[in-house]
Amino acid sequence: MTDGTAPRRRGRPARTEATDGPAAPERILEAARTEFAERGYDKTTMRGIARAAGVDAALVHHYYGSKDDVFAAAIEVSFEPALAVSEILGKGTDGIGERLARYIIGIWENPVSRVPLLAIIRSALTHDAAAKVFRGFVLRRLLGRVAAELEVPNPEFRAELAASHLVGIAILRYVIQVEPLASADPEEIIAMVAPTLQRYLTEA
Amino acid sequence: MTDGTAPRRRGRPARTEATDGPAAPERILEAARTEFAERGYDKTTMRGIARAAGVDAALVHHYYGSKDDVFAAAIEVSFEPALAVSEILGKGTDGIGERLARYIIGIWENPVSRVPLLAIIRSALTHDAAAKVFRGFVLRRLLGRVAAELEVPNPEFRAELAASHLVGIAILRYVIQVEPLASADPEEIIAMVAPTLQRYLTEA
Repeated sequence: MTDGTAPRRRGRPARTEATDGPAAPERILEAARTEFAERGYDKTTMRGIARAAGVDAALVHHYYGSKDDVFAAAIEVSFEPALAVSEILGKGTDGIGERLARYIIGIWENPVSRVPLLAIIRSALTHDAAAKVFRGFVLRRLLGRVAAELEVPNPEFRAELAASHLVGIAILRYVIQVEPLASADPEEIIAMVAPTLQRYLTEA
Repeated sequence: MTDGTAPRRRGRPARTEATDGPAAPERILEAARTEFAERGYDKTTMRGIARAAGVDAALVHHYYGSKDDVFAAAIEVSFEPALAVSEILGKGTDGIGERLARYIIGIWENPVSRVPLLAIIRSALTHDAAAKVFRGFVLRRLLGRVAAELEVPNPEFRAELAASHLVGIAILRYVIQVEPLASADPEEIIAMVAPTLQRYLTEA
């Protein structure tokens, strides 16, 4: 598991590697996201990531350590937009429910961020190792950051309840595609969900 | 896909089959649930189900048709307790949010119903064919029944929003096991979620 601080490269900088340019860590990460998205956690290999990135497998190990570490790094990149929630929270708690709903649903509405998110959630739901990485990330980075801003009893629990609703909506709307939710106007969803999130995050 | 009416056997009753007793359809279904739960949708085969049930593969086809049909039947059995929601709804809308939250979380808290539910949700999230079956079932049988009882605008949408929250809680609590939600007292969850469901299902 990474410690979550950028840049993720370890040891010597990429510039000193003979086989690649300075962009190797980013190329590897991009290849990893694609591999995990297309093949799922189980079928993705370090060798496959290396091949897709055009580098030696040893370099993938050098930068990212184990497969779980690469997965954690891929999760981080995919959820990077969501890490901006502290900005949303930083604006105070008035209307926080609506801002959060709008922001998260916006990430899902964008196909560029939706596809890797779906792949990662699918992996986390089907493989214990991926679930462990996801749990570590979701807990320590994302929800921990939200909970730290809240002034309610049991803030982590509250943040997780809010997250559970957003995760459930994403699954029914984007993965299982249940109608009419799958075709509903995002604004209609936001209007219904915002008061729920507002209550969870702010009302004691 | 089955038409959802019990009994699920087709054609002649099991009693007339030479190779098995009257319990063959039930035995096949039980074997199917176990196979889907243990192997997932992808790796479960009609032949494997037949072997686990101690019958000929042709008999599985005879009673249930295709693999998707067996999967649909297994979903139905696993969600049978949830189909009692019309009783919950039949008691009127006062306190419906709490009754629904308590009922669904009760199903998840019971390991006997949780294990096959988890397996089915995992399959639906990772395989399009399973998602299609799940969607058909969730839509037509479960949520349709709930929505029919509601007196709000866009009742299907409301029922799906409520379902999305319960699905999300199940995933964070039982699948990914995010703390503190995973260890929270069910009553604490019900107390927070009940007003949300109440609002979705009853407030215009």
